[in-house]
Amino acid sequence: MTDNAVNVARLSTTQDDFGTRLTALLAWEGVSDKQVAERVEEIIDAVRSRGDAAVIEYTNRLDRMQARDMSELTLGAARLREAYEGLPDAQREALAHAAERIRLYHQRQKPESWQYTEADGSVLGQKVTPLDRAGIYVPGGKAAYPSSVLMNAIPAHVAGVREIVMVVPTPDGVLNDLVLAAAHLAGVDYVFTVGGAQAVAALAYGTQSIPRVDKVVGPGNIYVATAKRAVFGQVGIDMIAGPSEILVVTDGETDPEWLAMDLFSQAEHDENAQAILVGWDAAHLDAVHAAIERLLPTMERESIIRESLASRGALIQCRDRDEALTIINRIAPEHLELSVGDPEAMAEGVRHAGAIFMGRYTAEVLGDYCAGPNHVLPTSGTARFSSPLGVYDFQKRSSLIHCSPEGAATLGRTASVLARGESLTAHARSAENRLGDT
Amino acid sequence: MTDNAVNVARLSTTQDDFGTRLTALLAWEGVSDKQVAERVEEIIDAVRSRGDAAVIEYTNRLDRMQARDMSELTLGAARLREAYEGLPDAQREALAHAAERIRLYHQRQKPESWQYTEADGSVLGQKVTPLDRAGIYVPGGKAAYPSSVLMNAIPAHVAGVREIVMVVPTPDGVLNDLVLAAAHLAGVDYVFTVGGAQAVAALAYGTQSIPRVDKVVGPGNIYVATAKRAVFGQVGIDMIAGPSEILVVTDGETDPEWLAMDLFSQAEHDENAQAILVGWDAAHLDAVHAAIERLLPTMERESIIRESLASRGALIQCRDRDEALTIINRIAPEHLELSVGDPEAMAEGVRHAGAIFMGRYTAEVLGDYCAGPNHVLPTSGTARFSSPLGVYDFQKRSSLIHCSPEGAATLGRTASVLARGESLTAHARSAENRLGDT
Repeated sequence: MTDNAVNVARLSTTQDDFGTRLTALLAWEGVSDKQVAERVEEIIDAVRSRGDAAVIEYTNRLDRMQARDMSELTLGAARLREAYEGLPDAQREALAHAAERIRLYHQRQKPESWQYTEADGSVLGQKVTPLDRAGIYVPGGKAAYPSSVLMNAIPAHVAGVREIVMVVPTPDGVLNDLVLAAAHLAGVDYVFTVGGAQAVAALAYGTQSIPRVDKVVGPGNIYVATAKRAVFGQVGIDMIAGPSEILVVTDGETDPEWLAMDLFSQAEHDENAQAILVGWDAAHLDAVHAAIERLLPTMERESIIRESLASRGALIQCRDRDEALTIINRIAPEHLELSVGDPEAMAEGVRHAGAIFMGRYTAEVLGDYCAGPNHVLPTSGTARFSSPLGVYDFQKRSSLIHCSPEGAATLGRTASVLARGESLTAHARSAENRLGDT
Repeated sequence: MTDNAVNVARLSTTQDDFGTRLTALLAWEGVSDKQVAERVEEIIDAVRSRGDAAVIEYTNRLDRMQARDMSELTLGAARLREAYEGLPDAQREALAHAAERIRLYHQRQKPESWQYTEADGSVLGQKVTPLDRAGIYVPGGKAAYPSSVLMNAIPAHVAGVREIVMVVPTPDGVLNDLVLAAAHLAGVDYVFTVGGAQAVAALAYGTQSIPRVDKVVGPGNIYVATAKRAVFGQVGIDMIAGPSEILVVTDGETDPEWLAMDLFSQAEHDENAQAILVGWDAAHLDAVHAAIERLLPTMERESIIRESLASRGALIQCRDRDEALTIINRIAPEHLELSVGDPEAMAEGVRHAGAIFMGRYTAEVLGDYCAGPNHVLPTSGTARFSSPLGVYDFQKRSSLIHCSPEGAATLGRTASVLARGESLTAHARSAENRLGDT
């Protein structure tokens, strides 16, 4: 051990207890706290019964504000544009570049309505419509990320949502102009500077000033997550996100310093973030370990990275690329970086991952900001059954059925038999009414 | 009032308090009960820690069974086929007809993977993959509906799910052969005859005999719904359904007895089901009311229908078709029957509905069984933001990003500026590593 020694778990698939160790490494129980849940219930009840007044009270108390009415907590489109125009050139151009790319990618994602006509003239199909109104939650304070605004609001805008409302807490009245500028670019209609469970409750149920939305998306702290879970069903919500994760697979040919920095880029998010490297070249894993030790002292967020790597990071040695694939599909990572020579071939075998970054040049962070695909991705193994946030999250479908008289007769006979098998005779008789003389 | 008088609310949009009355009529709070939640937590904990043994204990106690091990609670593919082959001809043919139509419709719904190449050689796309394993919950006892098996399992099968596991409680050991036959047709791989929260927990976490699934779908009682809500995040779930609803719109030209029976077909589900008729022809609404009074005494489920109509039904008179559309979009009904002469034109204006049944011949019940579209639909106004169960519920997407060296340099510059704006310097440096000499 040198002075720079970094404590990061070294696992190998040849260890007898590898499966158990991997499971322990991945274990993450979603946040759930009885006291928080009770407090959130209280806030939701207050907002439902007293509307604006309750939202203002909680905001003044929790964010140390002195608002007298909601107009002081409301920012219109003009204020958002102003923030955008006032940015330094480099930031304004970078934000616009990112927004444009995210928009182009998401436009490809739009599902279309469809229908078909059967031989007897009956028509079947599915109609796709946007939500009327979406609510975007944006955290305030230190985790205020303009990229999150772009990633949450642009899919809603591309989907054709009529009105996009954003909420963002501004503790002590501090506004983040980058966040407001991103809202302008993303098509947000207006902003309320409120946060916490009170903001989620207001979006879910509506108040005198804050309109009820159909879906609430966006990250937040435990109060926000608990409130979203509580209002689920009244409105739609996106996934409750766990800590960010990356799984990097290396074939031994990528610069160890690049890989070390890629791992750091997840680990710097917070102490619970998870950065894992998998490879089949032992000497190369050692080289990455050495690069980690060399580079870590140069990092602004050194202590967060050090803690994240020690508590949740790992370098895993496996036998070959097939075994790497098994590990990938076992982990179902949020971010998967395939730092290998033939990433397309390897990606074929990937069944579960939020986003796949292919090849040595595709740093995961490019996807965080501006490659185009969404950075809101399923965490904690939920890529087994869920998808990146997308245009489809801001649309819904309605089935279309238009039977011809002939079609109604054919289907009616089948429906009648099945309904009687379920002892639902009104169902049967409703179908039988349309049998005609056939 | 005659002897046959049926108590069903008559509303009119000209009433001053129409908005309030409509809101009261629609009010439905999702099930949530502290004692049930605690009991369910207990069951989940027991299944997580003791696996099969806990499942067997709860099943023996709650369903009055005497199983000694899980093999006695397991039905393989052969048993399902046997059930199908043993059905009376009419039922076997009706079930096969329904299954075939549902399969054909859902095949049209399959999303495809896509990708595109940019000018600098970078590739972006999205890869669609099926879930590895899905769990279908099927209620036992009086609400054992073979049509539910088809509607829940066929989309999973069409999606390409590798293994479809069904659970169905069999209180006192009573098996429903129609349900097993439907499982055979729908592509279910095997069945466990267990139910309740213990079945949901077993599917979510896995036991020695019951494999962990990636998503649990299907209706159930309050224990099942509470358990699904509790395991959400560990696995995917479908919506927690409220009572079934229909909104029928009439232009005054459809046979009043047909409309009465269509309303009954929802009302007979249970006392909380909701059947509403909207029209702008007062004399016609009177005629439907009279048909209701004439036909109700002839119904097998008369008392359920009577109670449902009295507590949650309504005949609503509006001014014209535009006002009918406003009411439709306010209600966002699960089932919408447009019993009008030009349903396509009217459907254009419908923004929120689970399924739209167009024209006088398209009885809603045809959709319950065999038209093709799914009968698992968003209830209680959730059609504002959610969709029918579909193939897309059994697949997920992974973003694909493969940057060329040139693409990585272009994106890297933008990412670097934005990352430094967010004070995430490892992000910035990871991008900067790939800038090359440009």
